Amino acid sequence: MSAALANLDQCIAAELAAVDEIFARELASDLACVNVLVRHVGRFRGKMLRPSLLLLSAKACGPITRDHHVLATVVEMVHMATLVHDDVLDEAELRRKGATINHLRGNEAAVLLGDYLISHSYHLCSSLASQDASRIIAATTNRVCEGELLQIDNRNNFDLDEETYLQIIERKTGALCAACCLLGAKFAGADEATCRRLERFGLALGTAFQIQDDLLDIFGDAAQVGKTLGIDINKGKMTLPMIHFLRTAPREHRHLLRSLLEGREADKIDRIVSLIAPSTSLAYARRRALEIANAARADLAEVPASPARQALELMAEFAVTRPV
Amino acid sequence: MSAALANLDQCIAAELAAVDEIFARELASDLACVNVLVRHVGRFRGKMLRPSLLLLSAKACGPITRDHHVLATVVEMVHMATLVHDDVLDEAELRRKGATINHLRGNEAAVLLGDYLISHSYHLCSSLASQDASRIIAATTNRVCEGELLQIDNRNNFDLDEETYLQIIERKTGALCAACCLLGAKFAGADEATCRRLERFGLALGTAFQIQDDLLDIFGDAAQVGKTLGIDINKGKMTLPMIHFLRTAPREHRHLLRSLLEGREADKIDRIVSLIAPSTSLAYARRRALEIANAARADLAEVPASPARQALELMAEFAVTRPV
Repeated sequence: MSAALANLDQCIAAELAAVDEIFARELASDLACVNVLVRHVGRFRGKMLRPSLLLLSAKACGPITRDHHVLATVVEMVHMATLVHDDVLDEAELRRKGATINHLRGNEAAVLLGDYLISHSYHLCSSLASQDASRIIAATTNRVCEGELLQIDNRNNFDLDEETYLQIIERKTGALCAACCLLGAKFAGADEATCRRLERFGLALGTAFQIQDDLLDIFGDAAQVGKTLGIDINKGKMTLPMIHFLRTAPREHRHLLRSLLEGREADKIDRIVSLIAPSTSLAYARRRALEIANAARADLAEVPASPARQALELMAEFAVTRPV
Repeated sequence: MSAALANLDQCIAAELAAVDEIFARELASDLACVNVLVRHVGRFRGKMLRPSLLLLSAKACGPITRDHHVLATVVEMVHMATLVHDDVLDEAELRRKGATINHLRGNEAAVLLGDYLISHSYHLCSSLASQDASRIIAATTNRVCEGELLQIDNRNNFDLDEETYLQIIERKTGALCAACCLLGAKFAGADEATCRRLERFGLALGTAFQIQDDLLDIFGDAAQVGKTLGIDINKGKMTLPMIHFLRTAPREHRHLLRSLLEGREADKIDRIVSLIAPSTSLAYARRRALEIANAARADLAEVPASPARQALELMAEFAVTRPV
């Protein structure tokens, strides 16, 4: 499937190259020390999920314009800002197989670099003729911050329920993907109903993607994922398989998981993996991610068929089938 | 003089009350955990310097409108965001005689709360009909971040020169004050020349204010200032009296200051104060602040006389005469 994805990526390759160019130009400073930090961020840029969502949503609804290139850069910058600040929060030492900013340069540089990225994302967005995108982006970052705040408020809350978990990930990850698809459609001249459909698609895709991301944090292969594993558990962050396990597993298994979560054993992560992997909870979390991804694809059904729509469908599939 | 200031504050009292109201409304969330944090920020709100600059600049140029209330709230929110993030950076435990967010709730909550504030400031700004303010605010926060990044890049650089120091504080503090005065004037319909004059006034006032703030950090009275003293020195941040001292004091005094700055003695701050206070360097820093404040007032000379202009002049004076 990744071959199919790579193939469909081709249909926005020129646009993604434009995004890279705008990204670099917007962040260039007259201060050498700023450029050094920015270059480091550039090195751990990722798979361009959010710009791709925006550009493909645009292409599925109408012509891609210069505004789309700018907006795709804006959402990538917002995403990079949240990654840089997340790394402060998570005390993560690895990100995409490169040292994180906070590990290399201290938390202070990471906080300020995240601020620099978010400031430039709004600055770039305000260069458009219409204020619409600025409103959508700022409303989205409001929600992203709320999701993150709700998440740390529930740190070490082993009673976290699935509903609150979904609320967290919908705001923290779903909201930005929703905004990508909405902006892509809206700036391609899509009607209101289509805009809402694509927004719902993005919300569901982002949510499913986050469930899978959380699964990879526990059950992934460190070498393949390219990040420190078990960060969520070590930071007291409850994710779907654990929430389900604490709701459904036999009493003594539940007790064991709780005491492992509360403890600080060196082999804590391995023991939690061994406990949950054979249960129904891993399968449950995968199924929920799949259901949400399928709901996302259903929202695309009324968008006219096109290679761009097909690429969006594939992205929804890929979001939940990335190797665990 | 503070009586005169209080008196002149009266002329924008109703406007400042409107700012408080918009501030609270904009930050309200459907999540209780977010509101708890926001209420805490509210408790250490300050002297409303930036909203006052904006509103008085407006009043000096034309009628105050609803847009000015919104913009005055935006700049206060931007300022609060930088304070919250600064406290992470500075590891400061006290701010306005109340515990800082990071001390109470950890660095993570402080990073996210700062992000929440900055996001809402852009969100509020994007509610205006014109995109102009969004552009000015985002360009300003770009500069503020650069100033902060340049500052940490020069941490423990005891060879920092006055020119680079001024570049840091002009961006970090001057830029936002400049934007306040510019936005006030622009949205009151001032002509381009008047807008530029007020922008320069704000830049100079903010710069002078920061020199004085840096003086208070070393030579202030902790009880009166309401903040931990000596933070700058403990964080390796060079400020004007020390820069001047290392340029002009007798050789052995310079060596002593350097070794004190590099060391970790418990009475380090007291010894540095005793060394610099009798020198010409404290007077030099005060004089520079005064010169810059006077330049600020000169820029007001061509703005028609009014109670608002008089209040701005008083603010420039107060910026550098706050008790050390």
